[in-house]
Amino acid sequence: MAAGYFHRGLSHTRATCELFVRRLPRPRRYLVANEVEAAIDAALALRFDDDDLAYLRDVPGLRDALTPELEAYLRDFRFRGDIDAVPDGTLVFAGAPLMRVTADIIEAQLFETLVLSMVNHGTMVASKAARIVHAAAGRAVLEFGTRRTHPAAAIGAARAAYLVGAVGTSNVEAGRRYGIPVSGTAAHMWTMTHDDEVSSFENYVATFPKGTFLLIDTYDTLRGAERAAKVAKDKLRGVRLDSGDLDGLSREVRKILDREGCPEAKVVASGDLNEYSIDRLLRAGAPIDTFGVGTELVCSKDAPSLGGVYKVVQYERDGKVVPVGKLSEGKATYPGPHQVFRRLDGKCPIRDRLTLVDAEPEEGEVPLLVPMVRGGERCSPSSTLDERRATAMATLAALPPGLTALESPTPKAEMYPVVVDAPVQALLGEVAKRHRG
Amino acid sequence: MAAGYFHRGLSHTRATCELFVRRLPRPRRYLVANEVEAAIDAALALRFDDDDLAYLRDVPGLRDALTPELEAYLRDFRFRGDIDAVPDGTLVFAGAPLMRVTADIIEAQLFETLVLSMVNHGTMVASKAARIVHAAAGRAVLEFGTRRTHPAAAIGAARAAYLVGAVGTSNVEAGRRYGIPVSGTAAHMWTMTHDDEVSSFENYVATFPKGTFLLIDTYDTLRGAERAAKVAKDKLRGVRLDSGDLDGLSREVRKILDREGCPEAKVVASGDLNEYSIDRLLRAGAPIDTFGVGTELVCSKDAPSLGGVYKVVQYERDGKVVPVGKLSEGKATYPGPHQVFRRLDGKCPIRDRLTLVDAEPEEGEVPLLVPMVRGGERCSPSSTLDERRATAMATLAALPPGLTALESPTPKAEMYPVVVDAPVQALLGEVAKRHRG
Repeated sequence: MAAGYFHRGLSHTRATCELFVRRLPRPRRYLVANEVEAAIDAALALRFDDDDLAYLRDVPGLRDALTPELEAYLRDFRFRGDIDAVPDGTLVFAGAPLMRVTADIIEAQLFETLVLSMVNHGTMVASKAARIVHAAAGRAVLEFGTRRTHPAAAIGAARAAYLVGAVGTSNVEAGRRYGIPVSGTAAHMWTMTHDDEVSSFENYVATFPKGTFLLIDTYDTLRGAERAAKVAKDKLRGVRLDSGDLDGLSREVRKILDREGCPEAKVVASGDLNEYSIDRLLRAGAPIDTFGVGTELVCSKDAPSLGGVYKVVQYERDGKVVPVGKLSEGKATYPGPHQVFRRLDGKCPIRDRLTLVDAEPEEGEVPLLVPMVRGGERCSPSSTLDERRATAMATLAALPPGLTALESPTPKAEMYPVVVDAPVQALLGEVAKRHRG
Repeated sequence: MAAGYFHRGLSHTRATCELFVRRLPRPRRYLVANEVEAAIDAALALRFDDDDLAYLRDVPGLRDALTPELEAYLRDFRFRGDIDAVPDGTLVFAGAPLMRVTADIIEAQLFETLVLSMVNHGTMVASKAARIVHAAAGRAVLEFGTRRTHPAAAIGAARAAYLVGAVGTSNVEAGRRYGIPVSGTAAHMWTMTHDDEVSSFENYVATFPKGTFLLIDTYDTLRGAERAAKVAKDKLRGVRLDSGDLDGLSREVRKILDREGCPEAKVVASGDLNEYSIDRLLRAGAPIDTFGVGTELVCSKDAPSLGGVYKVVQYERDGKVVPVGKLSEGKATYPGPHQVFRRLDGKCPIRDRLTLVDAEPEEGEVPLLVPMVRGGERCSPSSTLDERRATAMATLAALPPGLTALESPTPKAEMYPVVVDAPVQALLGEVAKRHRG
């Protein structure tokens, strides 16, 4: 496409593209935008070096299109346009953009796949993690899923979980890269490579004499709990159960810890947990203090993909501004550049309004898309992960049951309202008429 | 754990660990091992530099354990042990190891998470892609899913799909890194930023005068097909449909292409395809030549995680060899180091036999785990991706319906037999008795 725009004299077409999600994956009631800012930074960093060009020259279909002139253009390539977007941690809904890009058309188009990949994956995991943190109802959530996803995706998943309120991760590289607290216990291997469980606990406590957690389910969870308490005594910060009936076992283990003089020791539970099982455990009254959540969180197992798309909404050529929409079956998009205005009740989103970009906010509305890049330069300093986390957690904590319920919304009735402004509707009608007429 | 082994004088314990999958995720009937060799290379490359140690020193729980002696050990760390494993592209089943590692215990344990992450993700995607390629029954499959997974996972997914028979990918970085053919069409944006579809096709054909594919569903698929044929004529290598009723549209489009003098032009279909929809389309007789498959493939959407685990099976200390197994509820593992012998009918796997490592093959059996690393050095040259692909494709093509059927196997009856050798069973009994007695 870049070659086509370049060779056909279209490269200075000015285009506006928007990234949005057409439908929330069931049973999501909201999404938490994530990796938007990292995606913008990756887009700004996009360059073509000699190796890149040498490879492209060798791709069969591209050889003829990659003329010296196009190579010179690509060597000099960098994004010089404008980007408005929602900050990471913002609640977003279907049908309203999270990002708007305006630039020369090749610049607006070349990073489409990279940006979608980052935002789709990051938003998918953050949105799942938010449900899990909500279900934990104030108990701690630890991200434990590295081994169940790609190593690079795992680092991103740890960050996503932390953004929405997880208290730590077992992914040490994520800890280093993002300053996320790291946490974990020994594996069963530790216990299994000792003559018996008691000596394995003794050796672990001797290694961490200021206090530690012990994994107690290698052989028999209840005997493990007793041994942990007897060996570690006041050094026992907690025990971890990773198998079996977590409800029943956590109650028995709690009793044992209290009886054996470890009332401060926490009960950590893990093992294929998700928002539903955590909710059930807590409703049943299971005395679990911390949930280690892995597979379900990092894979967003019940909704393992997010279909965010990046679509052109307007182009401008020879002084003529042309709003455009895609009219394909079931994939229609609103033409024209948009803003989203949100009405809030305190920190709680009440309603979004999709408007054309030049619309004015009504009283009490805030714009969701904020300037991130102007003329190819970041114009908003990236806030820190901890700042984004505080904002996201405050918003999530303020949500009403209609947004936090774990089940799918009853069609329409319970869905968060995204109102489409009349001028947006009118423009869609005009564009449809132009193409069908 | 490493600190514990080190400080408690256990670092020279010799340990054997095995990587295996406990249960095939429904509805898988087989898995295709993948990223095993890359994981081994990553394990061999594991080092600790000054920055790593500085970070670890700052982790609250680790500060005291990270003594100068342990730091010196970690600075000098590299894997010096032995690894046997199945080559990438090998068919594997539940309960039998894909990898066996024997080394000093810290070396055997430190890379557990990294190796699991790589093998679980790679094997999950390759196994899903194999089902999709099988369903396509000889029609071409292109991997189109980059935008629906993490950018690094996407590159791996393109390689996984190619390993099991996909003919190409739209991921240009995967093309460059692994020599995979790259393929794709313009996006709808190309058409939408022209005055009309005809001029967009004219400009695209002018850019690729040796021939090209055109995306025809931006406005009206059938009119798009006519325009594509009229504009491109004998330059039309094919058309792509990305929405709507692919069965009906592909028939109409085929007729139009034939009528308009483009009988050689291919019909490429995409849009949330998976093995089931491809199977239905082909059974119905849809004249589709190439399937572009994205989301479902890269996310393995119906089984979006793979639970491969890495467990210690034996340790040796003070001259004493101790086979060990985990006896947790529902998570039991066979103690002792294992080999897997496979009986083949031509290239088709007939039955696996899990044996202790020193067992002899029966006539006609081949060992699945082959030496990959001895004393920390690769001892088998990595074969090329194309060699692995040829082997994997030949095996997959030889599979009987009992293995290739898309639905879950009827419990037991249709499951691929993995026979557990009597000495393996006996050893499990002994270990259970030791711990319970």
